Amino acid sequence: MRVPVELRKAYKLINHGPTTLITSAHAGKVNIMAAAWVMALDFDPPKLCAVIAGDTHTRGLVDASGAFVVNVPTRAQVDLTYAVGSESGRDVEKLSTRGIATAPAATVEAPLVEGCAAWLECKVVREPHNEKQYDLFIAQVTAAWAEDRLFRNGEWHFERDEDRTLHHMAKGVFYMTGGRVEVSRRR
Amino acid sequence: MRVPVELRKAYKLINHGPTTLITSAHAGKVNIMAAAWVMALDFDPPKLCAVIAGDTHTRGLVDASGAFVVNVPTRAQVDLTYAVGSESGRDVEKLSTRGIATAPAATVEAPLVEGCAAWLECKVVREPHNEKQYDLFIAQVTAAWAEDRLFRNGEWHFERDEDRTLHHMAKGVFYMTGGRVEVSRRR
Repeated sequence: MRVPVELRKAYKLINHGPTTLITSAHAGKVNIMAAAWVMALDFDPPKLCAVIAGDTHTRGLVDASGAFVVNVPTRAQVDLTYAVGSESGRDVEKLSTRGIATAPAATVEAPLVEGCAAWLECKVVREPHNEKQYDLFIAQVTAAWAEDRLFRNGEWHFERDEDRTLHHMAKGVFYMTGGRVEVSRRR
Repeated sequence: MRVPVELRKAYKLINHGPTTLITSAHAGKVNIMAAAWVMALDFDPPKLCAVIAGDTHTRGLVDASGAFVVNVPTRAQVDLTYAVGSESGRDVEKLSTRGIATAPAATVEAPLVEGCAAWLECKVVREPHNEKQYDLFIAQVTAAWAEDRLFRNGEWHFERDEDRTLHHMAKGVFYMTGGRVEVSRRR
């Protein structure tokens, strides 16, 4: 079940560096792309960074709407994740063509992709120089959600491989988020 | 054995979102800190982003030298990774106190931490607004290295858990980079 995550804990949903799916929407158009270059930027209020290339359909929707959603997909969604990173929303309406189920977000127009492990709704903090020079976006997280079967009590609980989050290396080769390690002495 | 990685392939060393160790040096002083908020920003020439908080000793050394090294530690170094993220270089010279072995870098003064899986030498692309407003640094990768036992032919090869790279979630809880997944249809 998708449950809200306190905003000050939202960084935990991407602190381990998973590959993400970015959804965007504006004026009735909606799109999805894969994005590995996403990271947390601040705790409270939570911010994150994402690289959204200038030649993508997503970029146009993000520029127009000032918002997007960072969805964190699982092993079960690896083919989907790769596929939507390999085609352009200019050529095909990816969500409907691929039958990708979505749910409405709470604070932005972009939708939440069903079946993911976590979702971060984001509003762009406009930084035109970064956007133009580096395709780098800074955004504030305005709502965060997690699948409670996988993330609860502020921690991930992966029991089955199909539920594990993903880390893209290159060209369709991913690694799953692996075994948990706790340091010997926690502060 | 540490071998050079072609600059245009350097992004592969951090594309999977591992937690890193950032080393820095200036005028005979050297420091090390843990950094999970590091991501690739461009392919060629390779650039990356890193968050380096304003109150850290590392920040002073990076500001002064305009350079740092992103080291990618392994499971065998998890206690070290957590420890150097829990104390300040202002209070203790962490590298010598902890007996952390280093080797000289090729293009920057900051050292390479022995035993890591990969190393990216970085020169800061000065962006004062980002640095001041967000503690966000943009840097160009000027040399890259990998342990050839773990990264070869452009891909990671983790056979033993102790060799796996790390993904920090919070408070001393890490996940190892897990099993490899290849999508069904690669483009």
